[in-house]
Amino acid sequence: MKTVGYAAQSSESPLAPFNFVRRVLRSNDVAMEVLYCGVCHSDLHTAHNDWGWTTYPIVPGHEIVGRVTAIGSDVTRYKLGDTVAVGCMVDSCQTCDQCHKGEEQLCREGNTGTYCGLDRITQEPTQGGYSKHLVVREEFVLRVPETLDLAKVAPLLCAGITTYSPLRTWNVVPGSRVGVIGLGGLGHMAVKLAAGMGAKVTVLSRSKDKTADALALGAEQLLVSADIDAMDKAQSSFDLIIDTVPVKHDLNPYVPLLDVDGTLVIVGQVGPMEEQNTVSMLLGRRRIAGSPIGGIRETQEMLDFCAQKNILPDCEMIHMDQINEAFERMERSDVRYRFVIDMASLPVPDTLVV
Amino acid sequence: MKTVGYAAQSSESPLAPFNFVRRVLRSNDVAMEVLYCGVCHSDLHTAHNDWGWTTYPIVPGHEIVGRVTAIGSDVTRYKLGDTVAVGCMVDSCQTCDQCHKGEEQLCREGNTGTYCGLDRITQEPTQGGYSKHLVVREEFVLRVPETLDLAKVAPLLCAGITTYSPLRTWNVVPGSRVGVIGLGGLGHMAVKLAAGMGAKVTVLSRSKDKTADALALGAEQLLVSADIDAMDKAQSSFDLIIDTVPVKHDLNPYVPLLDVDGTLVIVGQVGPMEEQNTVSMLLGRRRIAGSPIGGIRETQEMLDFCAQKNILPDCEMIHMDQINEAFERMERSDVRYRFVIDMASLPVPDTLVV
Repeated sequence: MKTVGYAAQSSESPLAPFNFVRRVLRSNDVAMEVLYCGVCHSDLHTAHNDWGWTTYPIVPGHEIVGRVTAIGSDVTRYKLGDTVAVGCMVDSCQTCDQCHKGEEQLCREGNTGTYCGLDRITQEPTQGGYSKHLVVREEFVLRVPETLDLAKVAPLLCAGITTYSPLRTWNVVPGSRVGVIGLGGLGHMAVKLAAGMGAKVTVLSRSKDKTADALALGAEQLLVSADIDAMDKAQSSFDLIIDTVPVKHDLNPYVPLLDVDGTLVIVGQVGPMEEQNTVSMLLGRRRIAGSPIGGIRETQEMLDFCAQKNILPDCEMIHMDQINEAFERMERSDVRYRFVIDMASLPVPDTLVV
Repeated sequence: MKTVGYAAQSSESPLAPFNFVRRVLRSNDVAMEVLYCGVCHSDLHTAHNDWGWTTYPIVPGHEIVGRVTAIGSDVTRYKLGDTVAVGCMVDSCQTCDQCHKGEEQLCREGNTGTYCGLDRITQEPTQGGYSKHLVVREEFVLRVPETLDLAKVAPLLCAGITTYSPLRTWNVVPGSRVGVIGLGGLGHMAVKLAAGMGAKVTVLSRSKDKTADALALGAEQLLVSADIDAMDKAQSSFDLIIDTVPVKHDLNPYVPLLDVDGTLVIVGQVGPMEEQNTVSMLLGRRRIAGSPIGGIRETQEMLDFCAQKNILPDCEMIHMDQINEAFERMERSDVRYRFVIDMASLPVPDTLVV
C-alpha cells in the first residue's frame, strides 16, 4: 500500500513529507488510517540518532490512534471501522515465556519496534505513526474504548503504559505513597494514573512553580527537591517513586525518600546516571529499578482503566507540518504535557486516494 | 565490670591492649565471657575511620560467641553457662513498626551498633567483641545451637546473616539461580548458604583461579567476568546476584546477567559506585538493591538453618595479638575466608580475675 508520512532523512535533517509503501496485508494483519499520533521524546531522540541505532529514512511515531480500513482473512478481533490503537511495538516472537505471559515488551528475542525495528518476515525497517496508514498484525492492535475522547488517547500508548506498568508491577493500591520526579509527558500521566488508583501522590520538583499544576493533575502535594529540610523530613515516606527525567541525573537525593523495601523506578533516562552512593540503599534496603513500556494485555487493561476513570493526558494538538517546531519546544520542555498530531492535517496526494 | 580488650586509639594507631569498664548488669542484661570473635572488614574500616564516624578509643568486633556468666533479674531466656552469640547490633527502640516486625536492623530510630554506637540509656559509646567480657540486653542475644563447632560460629553473626537475609528477602528456593560476586568472607558464606537452600550457585570472578574453591564451597560453576563471550551467553540467567565486593566498582557488566525482574543486591560496598547505565535496567526490568544485616529473629533462624545443614564458614584461627597482621592480610584479601580470634589468647590481668 502506498502511503505518505513525515520522515527524517538524516540526524541533521528536519522531518519532511515522505512517500513510502506499507506492506501488503497478511492474513493476520489489520490496516488502519491513522487519526492521531502522539509526539514522544523517543521520536526526537530517534530522529536525531541520539541513541546511535537509527536507520534512515525514519518515520517516527508510536502513540497511534486509527480506524480500521482493511483486515486480513484470519483476523477475528477487529472489523472495518473499529477505533484501534498501536503503541511502541508491532511484533514479538509470540513463543517465549515472556510472550506467553503477555509481556511481549520483554520478549526473549526482543520485540519489534513500531519504528526503527525490522519486520520479522521481510527484515524491512518498520516505520511509525507519523503517516497516513499503518499495517500491524492483529495481536499488537489495541481496542480504544468508545467513551474516551479520541483526540487525546494517543499519548496513553507510550506515556500512559510506561507509567501504568510500574504502578502495577510494584503493586500500587489505594493509600500507596507514590512520588513522581519530572512533570512532563510521562510524569503528568504517572500522577493521573497513580491518583486514579487511589495512591497518595507527591510531585518532586526543583521549585514550587509547578505546585498548582501538580495539584490539578491529582497530586496531594509538591515536594521541592532543593529544600533540604523538606527532603530530610520526607525521608522513608514513599513506597514507590517513578522517575521520568529523560537526562542523566543524580538519584542520591531521592533514594532516602523511599521507605524500607521501597523502589525508585527509572522510566525516563535511557543512558548513564550520576554515581550512586550505596549507603542509603543498604541502610534502608532500598531499591532502584528500570521499567520499559508494558505488554499488550496490560496496555489494553490501561486503556480500559482510563476509560473507567476518564483519565486522559493534557494535550496540545498540532498539525503535521508543525512537527519540527514541536520537537524544538519539547527540547525546552515547553509543552503541557504532550503534543498530538491531528493526522487529518497531513495532505494526501491524489495518487493515494483509494 | 572491669574488662580488657584490644582498641585503636586513633585512625593511625594499631590495635593494642585496652582496659575498660562494661556497664553494671541491668535487669534485662546478659553478661558473657567472649570465647571467639570474628574479624570483619567493618572492624578494619571503623578502626581506620574510613567512614568518618568512628569515635576513639574503639574496641571493634561484632561476630561474637560467648558463654553466659551472669544474668539480670528479669532475664528469662538464658541461664549461666549457655552458649550465646551477639552480632552487629545490641539495641533498638523496640517500639517502631520495624522492631515489631523483628527487623531491628531497620529500626526507625536506628539500631545501636555493637561498637561505635551509643548506649540508649547512658549515651556512652558501645564497645565490641575484641574483649574478654560483654554485656548485652537479652533481646539482642542469640542462642548457638549445640551441634555447631563453636570455634567457627562467630562469622555467621555478620558475614552469615548479611548474606542469608537477602537470600530470604528475595525468596531464594530450590532451583533459584544465584550469582555471587566476590569470594571473601561474605561471598563464601553466600555460596554456602544459597547452596544450602538448594539454589544453583555461580561464582563471578575476574579469573579462573578460584574455580576449585568455588566448587568446593558448593557452587555449580565459576563465570569469569573478564570473558566477554561467556558473560554474553549468561545474559538473563540469574534470579538474584549477591554483590559482596567491598570497594567502589562497576555494575554495568553484571546487571544484564539478571533475568526479568531479577535483582542485584549490594551487601559489600558502603559508599559510591561507578556510573550506572540504565539501558539494561529498563530493557529487562532489572533491579539493583542494597541490604544490611538481618533482624534478630532472622539471625536466630540463620543459626538454626546452619545447624540443620551443618554450614559453617571456613576460618583461620588467630590469637588476639595477631590482629594487626590480620588486618593487613585482609586488606590484601589474603584469608580464606575469615579470621576468628580465639579470645582465650587474650591475657587477663590478675585484677580482673573474678
